Amino acid sequence: MTASSNILFTNAKLADGALADLGVTGGRFSAIVPAGGGVATDARVVDLGGQLVVPAFVEGHIHLDTSFYGDAWRPHIPCINGFDVRERVAFQAQNLAAAAPMEERARNQLELCIGNGSLAMRSHVMVDGSVGLKHLEVILAVREQYREQIDIQLVAFPQSGILSSPGTPEFLDEALKLGCDLIGGLDPASFDRDVKGHLDVVFGLAQKHGVGVDIHLHDGGSLGLFQIEEIAARTRALGMHGHVAVSHAYALGDIDNAALMKAGEMLAASGVAIMTNAPGNHAFPPVTALRQSGVTVFSGSDNIRDSWWPYGDGDMLSRANLIGYRSGFYEDWELTSAFDVVSHAGAKALGLEGYGIAVGARADFVTIKAEHVPEAVVAVPKGRTVYRAGKQIRTCS
Amino acid sequence: MTASSNILFTNAKLADGALADLGVTGGRFSAIVPAGGGVATDARVVDLGGQLVVPAFVEGHIHLDTSFYGDAWRPHIPCINGFDVRERVAFQAQNLAAAAPMEERARNQLELCIGNGSLAMRSHVMVDGSVGLKHLEVILAVREQYREQIDIQLVAFPQSGILSSPGTPEFLDEALKLGCDLIGGLDPASFDRDVKGHLDVVFGLAQKHGVGVDIHLHDGGSLGLFQIEEIAARTRALGMHGHVAVSHAYALGDIDNAALMKAGEMLAASGVAIMTNAPGNHAFPPVTALRQSGVTVFSGSDNIRDSWWPYGDGDMLSRANLIGYRSGFYEDWELTSAFDVVSHAGAKALGLEGYGIAVGARADFVTIKAEHVPEAVVAVPKGRTVYRAGKQIRTCS
Repeated sequence: MTASSNILFTNAKLADGALADLGVTGGRFSAIVPAGGGVATDARVVDLGGQLVVPAFVEGHIHLDTSFYGDAWRPHIPCINGFDVRERVAFQAQNLAAAAPMEERARNQLELCIGNGSLAMRSHVMVDGSVGLKHLEVILAVREQYREQIDIQLVAFPQSGILSSPGTPEFLDEALKLGCDLIGGLDPASFDRDVKGHLDVVFGLAQKHGVGVDIHLHDGGSLGLFQIEEIAARTRALGMHGHVAVSHAYALGDIDNAALMKAGEMLAASGVAIMTNAPGNHAFPPVTALRQSGVTVFSGSDNIRDSWWPYGDGDMLSRANLIGYRSGFYEDWELTSAFDVVSHAGAKALGLEGYGIAVGARADFVTIKAEHVPEAVVAVPKGRTVYRAGKQIRTCS
Repeated sequence: MTASSNILFTNAKLADGALADLGVTGGRFSAIVPAGGGVATDARVVDLGGQLVVPAFVEGHIHLDTSFYGDAWRPHIPCINGFDVRERVAFQAQNLAAAAPMEERARNQLELCIGNGSLAMRSHVMVDGSVGLKHLEVILAVREQYREQIDIQLVAFPQSGILSSPGTPEFLDEALKLGCDLIGGLDPASFDRDVKGHLDVVFGLAQKHGVGVDIHLHDGGSLGLFQIEEIAARTRALGMHGHVAVSHAYALGDIDNAALMKAGEMLAASGVAIMTNAPGNHAFPPVTALRQSGVTVFSGSDNIRDSWWPYGDGDMLSRANLIGYRSGFYEDWELTSAFDVVSHAGAKALGLEGYGIAVGARADFVTIKAEHVPEAVVAVPKGRTVYRAGKQIRTCS
C-alpha cells in the first residue's frame, strides 16, 4: 500500500470472505488491500482481529419525535372501534403531553440506533395542523447535536392528513424552508379521501423546494395499488426518478403474482423505492420479487415503543433478520439480500454519497463477531464496534 | 419471615410489580414476603437489586440431535422440486455425516438454551429406520450430563415416518424402553398416507409404555384439522387428557373463526396442547383464540441452525417477543400472555412439577433487567442471571 493513511485497520473480514487491511485517510477509505499487503509508516494501526466489517446500517424509516424509548412505560390501548388513525393521534397527543421532553426521547432513540450501527437515518417528523412546527423545531436541534455522529434526513410528515387538517399545507411548506429534506404524505385515499388533491400538495411542494418524497401508504389491495400507480406516474412525469419512496405499501403484499410483477416493473422504471419494516401480522411487499424486478427495497425500525405499538429495537441487523424470517429467507443469497436491504439498498433509497466498504467511500462501518453476512443476519451478534469516518464512536459487548 | 432459609434473595421484582424477598430452602422457595419483611439469621443474602424475577423458561420443542449451532456454517439448500421431507432428511444425513460429533453439537445448544434461561425442555430425537437408535443413545448420555442443570424430556421422533420407514415401530418401542418420555409422530396423512395406521402405532406405544404423545403436524387446512380431530378423539378415548400435544398444527391457522372456535373447544375438552414456534412466513395457530378456549398453547425454538432452516437463538424470551410480534400483541395483557406461553403454559404442557415463583415451587428462576413482564417481552434484555434450585448457574451481560 503506497497511499499514506491516518489509520490502518488490519485483518478485516470483508463480505466476500477475504481478509483485508483498510486504510483510512481524512475519514474515507483510501486503500483496501489483502491483509498484510503493506502498511504506510505514518498510519496508526488498529487490528480488527478477523471480525466481519460491514458498512454502517441505514435506518430508513423512524419517528424520532414520538417514541417513549428510555422513558416511562406507556401501556398500549387499542382504538375503541377498530383501528382509527385520528383516534390514535389523539392517544399519542395525550401520551406525549405526559412524556419526558421530546429532545431527551429523540436522543434516547439516536443513542440506541447509533450503538447498534446505524449512521444514516431517515426520520419522519409530525408536521400538521395539530402540532404545527413544534416537533420539527426540536428534532432539527437534535439533528444538529448529532451531526458529527449520524446523517439524518427529515421528512415533513402530515400525520393528521393534509387536506383534512387545516393549515397543514402551509406548515409543510414552512417545514421544508426550515430544513426538512423530504415531503411526506399519508394514505391519500383513506385519510384525506382525495388522492389527487393530496398528491397535488405533496408533489407541488416537492417541486417547489426541490426535495424528495416519502409517503406513508397503508391502504391495501386495489385501492393501495391505485395510489402506488399514481405516485409512480407523477414521479415519472416530474423526472423525480430515485427521489420518491412509498413506505409500507401493504398493497404490494395483497396482490397476485401477475399484478406484483407489473407493479414491480412500473416501480423500477419510475425509480420509486419501497420501504418495509417486515410487519409481524400483516401482509407486506414481497422483498425478493420486487428486488428481482429492479425495485430498491429498503427498511427501517418505524415506530419504536410509542403510541402505535410497543415493539422496536433500533437495530437494523435484527431488522434484516426479521425481514428474512418473515420472507422465508433460508439460503445464503437470500440472507445476504436481507442484509442488502438494511445497507446498500437503504443507501441507494436515501441517495447517500460515498457509501460502502470501497476506496473513496466514507469510513462509516461496523465490526461484527460473525464469520460472514448470512451468519450475522441469523445470529444478530450484539458485540459490535461502530466507526464514523474511521473513528470508533460506540462499542457494545 | 420465620422459616429458616439457605438463601434469601432480597429485592426481587415479581410479575405483579411487588418487591419481594424470596427464601430458598433445599432448592425450593420456602417463603415469599414483601421486601424487607424479615430475614432468617442463618440465610445467605443475595440482593437482586429490584430486577424482575420470573420462572425459568420452558423450551417446549427443540431438536438436540440435528443442530449445527456452534459448528461450521452449513448453507441451506432448498429441495429441488418444492419442499419434500424425505429429500430434506437425505440432505440432513449428508450434513450430519460431515458435522462435529452430535454430543458436542447437542451441548452447544444446551449451553445456549440454559444461558438464556430455559431450565426445562422437550426435545424430539430422530428414531426411525434411517438412524435407528443412534441419535437417541447420544442424546440420552448428554441428558445425563446435564441432569443437574436442566430437565429434559425426550420424544422418540419418527422423522422418516412410521409405516413407510421399515423397522421404525420396533425402534420406537425400544426408544421408550431406553428412556424416552414421549412418543412422537409425523404428518400421518401426508407422510405415511395412513392416518389410522400411523396413530394406531403412536397411541398403541403410548398406552404400552404409559407415556405421553407429541406429534409433528404440518398438514394444513381440512386435512390437518381432520388429523387434529383424530388425535383429540384418541386422547379422550384413552383418558390421556393433559398428556398429548400437537406441534405446529398449522391447520389451526388456516381455518375460519367458527371452525377455530369448535377446534379450540375440542382441544380444551380433550386436554390436547398445541405447540407453535410462531413461524415467520406461514399461518400458525392463533394464540389468543386458543387460549381463550382453554387450550394450553406452548412454544419452542424448534430447529436451530440445522438442515431445515438457519434461524433460531435458543432464547424463549425472544420467542415470546416473536409470538407477540407475529400475533399482533400490543397491549400489556397480550404481551403477558406471550410470556405465559413460554413459561407457565409450557410447564403445564410438559406436566412439570413445582413450577413458578411460589412457595413450594422449585427455585428455578431468571433475573431480568426489565421493569415488568411486558417490557421484558418487547425489549428481550440479554442481561440475565439464571438460577437452578436457588443456585446461580449462568449469567450473561
